[in-house]
Amino acid sequence: MADFENIAKQFVEYYYKAFDSDRASLAALYGQDSMLTFEATPLQGVGNIIQKLQELPFKEVQHQVATLDAQPADAQGSILVVVSGALLVEAEKRPMSYAQTFQLKPRDGSYYVFNDVFRLVYPAA
Amino acid sequence: MADFENIAKQFVEYYYKAFDSDRASLAALYGQDSMLTFEATPLQGVGNIIQKLQELPFKEVQHQVATLDAQPADAQGSILVVVSGALLVEAEKRPMSYAQTFQLKPRDGSYYVFNDVFRLVYPAA
Repeated sequence: MADFENIAKQFVEYYYKAFDSDRASLAALYGQDSMLTFEATPLQGVGNIIQKLQELPFKEVQHQVATLDAQPADAQGSILVVVSGALLVEAEKRPMSYAQTFQLKPRDGSYYVFNDVFRLVYPAA
Repeated sequence: MADFENIAKQFVEYYYKAFDSDRASLAALYGQDSMLTFEATPLQGVGNIIQKLQELPFKEVQHQVATLDAQPADAQGSILVVVSGALLVEAEKRPMSYAQTFQLKPRDGSYYVFNDVFRLVYPAA
């Protein structure tokens, strides 16, 4: 497995584990220039992003990853990561499908999330 | 609407119109370093990508875009484009949901597809 694929896999495991157990801890993965578009709402900067994630109207959530694809995103080591899966929210009886795209950029010998786009995906009519 | 959003919208309209009418014409949108991961199959280079798209086991296909998100992907003008929608294939009675992520990079005063990740998204169980 290529290096970017290993990094993407490790990132995705870490990201959803942190999301599902302690959303505030995701702050370490973003920066001041990070962008999140969450269900069409655009946010920029780690502060705004973490506030949005903490204000989501559910306390208990579980992400189940179904597919994970990764590609090199530039010549500087950035990595495109695309995930699809299921989201299980406490109050909902049925899981929802989602798709999430990240661009990871190198920072201080590791990576941070520069781009983040999250969408629920509804069954085609 | 920010410039990158207009470009993303124009690209997506053009891309699926070309895909659904004349897949070979998409060659103009890729380059030698372009990557496509199509349902987990990785391909690189415009030749391999177009060959794969032309070998897909359907002649008639229609993409219906449901959501389109865009973000700047770097300081050089690259654009991240994330689409979800429905795919209608001739032989299928029911449309399938899909998610597709592109990274557009500037080239010769326009843009080309550097990253392309396509996945069907199945309803969560």
